Amino acid sequence: MNIGELINVRLSDDGNAVVIIDQTLLPNEEKYLTLTTPEQMYEAIYMLRVRGAPAIGIFAAYALYVLAGQIDTGDFAVFAAKVNEYSAYLNSTRPTAVNLQTQLRRLTDTVNALSDLPIHQIIEAMRIEAEKIYDEDVQMCSAISRHGLSLIRGGVGNAGKGGLRCDDSTLCESFGVMTVCNAGPLATSKYGTALGPIILGHEQGMKIHAYICETRPLLQGARLTAYELDRAGVECTLICDNMASAVMSQGKINAVFAGCDRIAANGDVANKIGTSSLAILAKHYGIPFYVFGPSTTIDLSCPSGADIEIELRRPEEIKKLHFSKPMAPARVKCYNPAFDVTPRELITAIITEKGVLTGTATAL
Amino acid sequence: MNIGELINVRLSDDGNAVVIIDQTLLPNEEKYLTLTTPEQMYEAIYMLRVRGAPAIGIFAAYALYVLAGQIDTGDFAVFAAKVNEYSAYLNSTRPTAVNLQTQLRRLTDTVNALSDLPIHQIIEAMRIEAEKIYDEDVQMCSAISRHGLSLIRGGVGNAGKGGLRCDDSTLCESFGVMTVCNAGPLATSKYGTALGPIILGHEQGMKIHAYICETRPLLQGARLTAYELDRAGVECTLICDNMASAVMSQGKINAVFAGCDRIAANGDVANKIGTSSLAILAKHYGIPFYVFGPSTTIDLSCPSGADIEIELRRPEEIKKLHFSKPMAPARVKCYNPAFDVTPRELITAIITEKGVLTGTATAL
Repeated sequence: MNIGELINVRLSDDGNAVVIIDQTLLPNEEKYLTLTTPEQMYEAIYMLRVRGAPAIGIFAAYALYVLAGQIDTGDFAVFAAKVNEYSAYLNSTRPTAVNLQTQLRRLTDTVNALSDLPIHQIIEAMRIEAEKIYDEDVQMCSAISRHGLSLIRGGVGNAGKGGLRCDDSTLCESFGVMTVCNAGPLATSKYGTALGPIILGHEQGMKIHAYICETRPLLQGARLTAYELDRAGVECTLICDNMASAVMSQGKINAVFAGCDRIAANGDVANKIGTSSLAILAKHYGIPFYVFGPSTTIDLSCPSGADIEIELRRPEEIKKLHFSKPMAPARVKCYNPAFDVTPRELITAIITEKGVLTGTATAL
Repeated sequence: MNIGELINVRLSDDGNAVVIIDQTLLPNEEKYLTLTTPEQMYEAIYMLRVRGAPAIGIFAAYALYVLAGQIDTGDFAVFAAKVNEYSAYLNSTRPTAVNLQTQLRRLTDTVNALSDLPIHQIIEAMRIEAEKIYDEDVQMCSAISRHGLSLIRGGVGNAGKGGLRCDDSTLCESFGVMTVCNAGPLATSKYGTALGPIILGHEQGMKIHAYICETRPLLQGARLTAYELDRAGVECTLICDNMASAVMSQGKINAVFAGCDRIAANGDVANKIGTSSLAILAKHYGIPFYVFGPSTTIDLSCPSGADIEIELRRPEEIKKLHFSKPMAPARVKCYNPAFDVTPRELITAIITEKGVLTGTATAL
């Protein structure tokens, strides 16, 4: 894949809008949206038109910059209050991923630190900070991909009972990796986190076979990961989430690669619903379970997974969305958590831009 | 629910057709189909218009009787050959559930044992045998439901770490039970297997909360179990399959109840894809895992789960079926096993009409 051709979040050329690819329409339609109002931006995050913890952080930074440019005042106090209001509004879209609030805070901190400057210079500083967030993410994803590649190349992989096993001297004939949700280019600035090593390894001629969990209810695995890995030419097989155990039991999986939305200080990880299930299955079958994310995903103010707010979403996503007809009786209740928490003890290592880490987050 | 009002498989009044409710259209439409040709009957099983291991066995017996009545010969050898041909044709629809072949064999054995009788008397004996299969299933499901109820009433339940716990003297305030696929009235003659104790317990005033795994890709949990339990007035919550771990981790589940399609001699169980996943999760969270099925599901000729043929189905079921648009790139491969095998050591007990059994199947 020419990673450069697919840009999921960017500023418009005139800097007055944020442009995104509408991820809800993939893989059937590659449609770009130009967003200028706070309501459009809120809706884009909430409806997952832009998604993936790092990408949401980048988007929010660009969005706050664009909205700041619309504030018609020369008074700093008025300006700063309005920026904070927009920031709080955007931050209220989704509670679980920490990147959203972290990157918004970087921009509001920038504003507060420059109270002596004219407004137009503060806005310019916001643009520079937002671009820096983007550039840092590119660097972080690139480093994560390289570190992650060592897990494939170095032979940490182990396909469980009766499966393939890599060692230091030989590559697996085909390295089987299971993924959940989408932690690829669409979820980040460019390379992706959990998908980064897969795409990079494939480009370097390694034989990698990705088993993609479709990831109900919003099907990010089927719609986005399959789309990205197919474009990249990686051999991949789509499965329903409930097939993971069957595939693992057949010795086809050397490792599970997952992204993350927030890492607590004790190393517990919040990620897409179903991640904890894969971690438990991986432990049962003796398969290593790796979590990938930039260090900005670590939230040291959050002691453990129990302290992470898990976003609950609408029942309609389970019963109706994407279907041609409702798939359950109308009055049946649904429980629809968007994330779950995987305890640190089920995670073989966490891979950030700093390397492959096996301690708690405070040690990272 | 008035269980009697919903008849999923029956002979037509004139005995010349099998009538089924088309389970692929539920819960949106309650449409009955009248089937007379071998091709219609084959298609009904393959497309899961009739499904559930016991219901498929009953359907096949009625179907073979109806087809036998269409054979225009007075010659036993010609008649028996044609019956065997129809039987083999129907048996080739789905390989995993043992009930299909068992019940077809009962009818062909009936034919072979009566070679001295006139054809019309043999056909009448086939009808009697088919009705007997139906009646036995009603009795078996009823007994299974009562035995299963003892697991709720007797307090074998345990909602894992930090959850509710029943003991012998008190009922749980609400007994949380997780289910997969559909093992209710629609899957059997009448009461159901895994859903039997839930419906019966609810009728007896027990407070039971069913957590229904939607069961991708064909959504039998969402479409059929939610439909049946909602009609029965049981409190229930629908979840996606990848949410099971999150729900279990919250201490909401006292037990997992699953049906079965084949039980090997060593006690390994083939059931709907995802069952082994729930068994591994249940073990991790300290929750008992129960399998329900009539003793006809036990296949002593099958030494272990590894010897059970697992049906592989079309990629379109994962990528397109039920969706308003394709949910994955067209050329991405899918792996679509309809069943998986849960090893005996992960099963707390198997409940048949004979009772709650903890040994291997040979001891049942």
